Amino acid sequence: MTSNEVSVCEVGPRDGLQMASAIMPTDVKLRWLRRLGAAGVREIEVGSFVPPKLVPQMADTEEIVRAASQWMPEGLYVLAPNLKGAQRAHAAGAHAVIVPVSVSERHSQANTRKGTFEQVDEVRAIVEWTRAQTRRMRVDAGCATAFGCSMEGAIPLARVVDVASGLAQAGVDGIALADTVGYGNPAQVRECVRAVRAAVGPTLTKLHLHDTMGLGLANALAGLDEGIREFDASMAGLGGCPFAPGASGNIVTEDLVFMLESMGLRTGIDLEALMEARAFLREAFSSEPLRGSVALAGVPKTYRRAA
Amino acid sequence: MTSNEVSVCEVGPRDGLQMASAIMPTDVKLRWLRRLGAAGVREIEVGSFVPPKLVPQMADTEEIVRAASQWMPEGLYVLAPNLKGAQRAHAAGAHAVIVPVSVSERHSQANTRKGTFEQVDEVRAIVEWTRAQTRRMRVDAGCATAFGCSMEGAIPLARVVDVASGLAQAGVDGIALADTVGYGNPAQVRECVRAVRAAVGPTLTKLHLHDTMGLGLANALAGLDEGIREFDASMAGLGGCPFAPGASGNIVTEDLVFMLESMGLRTGIDLEALMEARAFLREAFSSEPLRGSVALAGVPKTYRRAA
Repeated sequence: MTSNEVSVCEVGPRDGLQMASAIMPTDVKLRWLRRLGAAGVREIEVGSFVPPKLVPQMADTEEIVRAASQWMPEGLYVLAPNLKGAQRAHAAGAHAVIVPVSVSERHSQANTRKGTFEQVDEVRAIVEWTRAQTRRMRVDAGCATAFGCSMEGAIPLARVVDVASGLAQAGVDGIALADTVGYGNPAQVRECVRAVRAAVGPTLTKLHLHDTMGLGLANALAGLDEGIREFDASMAGLGGCPFAPGASGNIVTEDLVFMLESMGLRTGIDLEALMEARAFLREAFSSEPLRGSVALAGVPKTYRRAA
Repeated sequence: MTSNEVSVCEVGPRDGLQMASAIMPTDVKLRWLRRLGAAGVREIEVGSFVPPKLVPQMADTEEIVRAASQWMPEGLYVLAPNLKGAQRAHAAGAHAVIVPVSVSERHSQANTRKGTFEQVDEVRAIVEWTRAQTRRMRVDAGCATAFGCSMEGAIPLARVVDVASGLAQAGVDGIALADTVGYGNPAQVRECVRAVRAAVGPTLTKLHLHDTMGLGLANALAGLDEGIREFDASMAGLGGCPFAPGASGNIVTEDLVFMLESMGLRTGIDLEALMEARAFLREAFSSEPLRGSVALAGVPKTYRRAA
């Protein structure tokens, strides 16, 4: 991957739908995934292996992974909070698992019922188990609350570096820094990316940003400036922030793709086709508010900057 | 002004209200301006001297300027498209006029019924007339459509530099680069700021950004990186884009202030007091949609980064 190419991972089917008030039917999910793939989206987080009692929206993840793996040649991500989930992901045919590790101790306990470094141990177990399997599966870790926590407030940078270092030592393939509640700012993103990269090098691969305070794309720009070339985003900003009712969810895939392509970076995603996938979402899942500026304003006829 | 200080000019009373479907009563405008001042907003574009038949929302500008100049010690901006408007602004007590000059020839004809360089001549006449007056008044020029035009499409960078150079030679105190339709991207902002500054030096002072495609704050960040320390913004993103129905207007003042303050920059604006001014707007001008992420999510208890 050259520095001109940016990978946009669509996490709406997981991070978006898990916050949705309605449950998207399995066949609608699969048709949506197909449209995302048709638009050139090469990485999709399709679901999570978490208790269906807690997150009923993800109850069909196994079926989704099995179906999507039939046509996705790569980039089929599933969230798995523990070894059991990772094993299920592997069995179903996922290409990668993303394991959440909350930098905030309190958020970690609330989210995974384990302390932060207990969860790092879980990641190590997942890496070791996965390496013993014949079929390869990528293991990434997502450092949740890396830019602030609604429970603990500010998160010390040294703590983020410690957690990321532990994850790198555990052998993960990639680390994502996640602004879980969307309280980060561009200066903080730059500082944090620099510090974590100094500790773990290229194992830091990705930013997972929320747009709670409207700074999502500015934070993405700060990450780009620091050399980050992988970003999570959610179509129509689907989802929300559990700690800020009414606030938006992940950064909007369509807007992020527009920004990147208009800057002369290349995502491999066709924005018009992406808007068709959004139109499908609007019709097939009309209970959820769809966000995003490009959708409101319309895609300009020419927006791609010469590379 | 040190590099840590950023000036945010509230343009909602002009750029926002001129696009509003309703006309804000004069007394409501004045009470809103007072609340903006109470929040620490030190620069406000309070109206424009344009034909009331075309822009009835601005018909009371003279009265507004006279009243606001009683309590604003500085920073009272008015938009004036021509010498006559600048003279009216001066007579009413404005501290500064901003003269629009469209870089796009077609937009210039549509907006001011003059070609771009005819309008540069008008600016020169304004500068000369103003210098001859006893009471000083700042003359700024706003380079409209500097980042793209809904009529002409892409605007060549060399054209922006030519227009800015002409304005600097005309003797303006400051030049703002305006993304009138909101089609700019961060790479373009950086490139344009660098090129214009190379031509006119510190006479380039400000960015005027719209959030049409959702890139407004990312574009502001790009400007900050290039040393820009003055930005226009509109409370609640009031207004819109005449060329993209449904699209948002200027970048949202509250969100911009949040971004700047959280990055450790200083605006002199109290965000909580700013939210009170917004609450006043919501009650006193309920016909207009109010935008902004910070308002939806709520102001976090601690957000200011140590300077």
